[in-house]
Amino acid sequence: MGKIVHCVPNFSEGRNEEVIEKIVDSFRNIEGVTLLNYSPDKDHNRTVVNVMGDPAKVKDAMVAAAKAATELIDMSKHEGAHPRMGAVDVVPFIPVAEVTMEECVEYAKEVGERIGALGVPVYLYEEAASKPERKNLADVRKGQYEGFFEKITQEGWKPDFGPGEMNAKTGCTAVGARIALVAFNVNLNTDKLEIADAIAKKVRFIGGGLRFVKAMGVMLEDRNQVQVSMNLVNYKKTSIYRAIELIKAEAARYGVTVYGTELVGMVPLEALVESAEYYMQLEDFDVNQIIEKQLLNSK
Amino acid sequence: MGKIVHCVPNFSEGRNEEVIEKIVDSFRNIEGVTLLNYSPDKDHNRTVVNVMGDPAKVKDAMVAAAKAATELIDMSKHEGAHPRMGAVDVVPFIPVAEVTMEECVEYAKEVGERIGALGVPVYLYEEAASKPERKNLADVRKGQYEGFFEKITQEGWKPDFGPGEMNAKTGCTAVGARIALVAFNVNLNTDKLEIADAIAKKVRFIGGGLRFVKAMGVMLEDRNQVQVSMNLVNYKKTSIYRAIELIKAEAARYGVTVYGTELVGMVPLEALVESAEYYMQLEDFDVNQIIEKQLLNSK
Repeated sequence: MGKIVHCVPNFSEGRNEEVIEKIVDSFRNIEGVTLLNYSPDKDHNRTVVNVMGDPAKVKDAMVAAAKAATELIDMSKHEGAHPRMGAVDVVPFIPVAEVTMEECVEYAKEVGERIGALGVPVYLYEEAASKPERKNLADVRKGQYEGFFEKITQEGWKPDFGPGEMNAKTGCTAVGARIALVAFNVNLNTDKLEIADAIAKKVRFIGGGLRFVKAMGVMLEDRNQVQVSMNLVNYKKTSIYRAIELIKAEAARYGVTVYGTELVGMVPLEALVESAEYYMQLEDFDVNQIIEKQLLNSK
Repeated sequence: MGKIVHCVPNFSEGRNEEVIEKIVDSFRNIEGVTLLNYSPDKDHNRTVVNVMGDPAKVKDAMVAAAKAATELIDMSKHEGAHPRMGAVDVVPFIPVAEVTMEECVEYAKEVGERIGALGVPVYLYEEAASKPERKNLADVRKGQYEGFFEKITQEGWKPDFGPGEMNAKTGCTAVGARIALVAFNVNLNTDKLEIADAIAKKVRFIGGGLRFVKAMGVMLEDRNQVQVSMNLVNYKKTSIYRAIELIKAEAARYGVTVYGTELVGMVPLEALVESAEYYMQLEDFDVNQIIEKQLLNSK
């Protein structure tokens, strides 16, 4: 099958269909590149694109899309609910097959440099970060587009690539490499939001919970149930089943049980297999025993 | 990705490497055909081949392998522990992707006819069977090679394809279409074989248990544990988790617990996902949310 990388660029346009289509066109009809889906959000005024394929081809398509976005989007006029710093807001590269994290860091650096050459200040983040304080995307993006006119002049926030001053039209771009995120929700048999909140605080890292879990309580009005909504930021180290079992244990003190769970969006096969192995008590299972995995290997 | 069929031919030669390699060569270096693995067994004097790919290409390769096997194997000299009726003993076609069971039945009929044209009496079995009494492979093969000189002359056992009399050199071949088998074992925290035997009898179809489960008790001498060894012959209707949970319930009456489980050989993704969904209590999960599945779809 060869090397496969997943890229999830976020563009700061979620309303103008013509602009969105022109940007997304950069990923269409290219041998070796698969446009999995794209989801424009009008409230956020933002479009998230899922694209996968041969690294060299994905990189070229990504730079072409960045060129289109910087030409078509004027950040000085952008409004939207989601935090953002540029027309091409964030570009993560995620390893899928026969690609290491180190290689994804190289892809991020190359694409960062090429987007920088379009006149856009570029910051490398997560695994590609040039300094520890640039690892976390939220820290990089802090201040947002409006704040970057000042932030970019600070000693510690000189861009990794591109001009050393703010580009008012394009804003700035974060390019990075990271492991796949797993968005996972647990729905509880209660309508008491305070219970979901309390459990979320116990299960998440900052509350002394699981190392790679971010969590918050959410009210599901239409179901009259509450939810612990999570991001598992490293499913290889903190598996889905561990989050489920810890939530069950915390919920038991309120006499509350799990009604159901939800995997949101894409999930790596390995993340699902690890939980299946735990619950099924599988010994010595190899993911290559899965027919579809073999089929993929043989491509 | 297009249509993908899985074929698992069994050849009656497990000792002579030169012969085995010549037969297996028919599946090698063919665009559109993937030789997944092959496992010669000296005791059984038999080789099981796993091959997958484009149906037209797999059919052609299968007929070429049958031609090689009928030329190189002399059944009148064959000895081995496994029941067998011919040099090409059995050829099942299994749907994998974008292929229906009806199409697999057509593949079985075409390949059966072409193997028949090599001078081999051919019986269609399972979903491809021409009569109800030919559905079960064990019924078709009953009497084995030695018994077929007489069996083939019986009113009800006229072959579906090929000559109406026994071929002493090649024996007979069964060609069919079936769903993927899941070989699944549950290891128990006890060394009492009678407990595994008793549970096997309760969990299997013929004992009033699950519709698509075949089971028997096995002693694992090296582990000092016993095992319920199963074949799930329709994982879509009798899921793996149901077998696990029923065995747990039956074992509880002896105070025995499950130590671990084993999936033997290949397993369809769907079979694993269904058990993950059950244990994780997943709501509305779609197998296409798995990154690797998307990747496969996009091929």
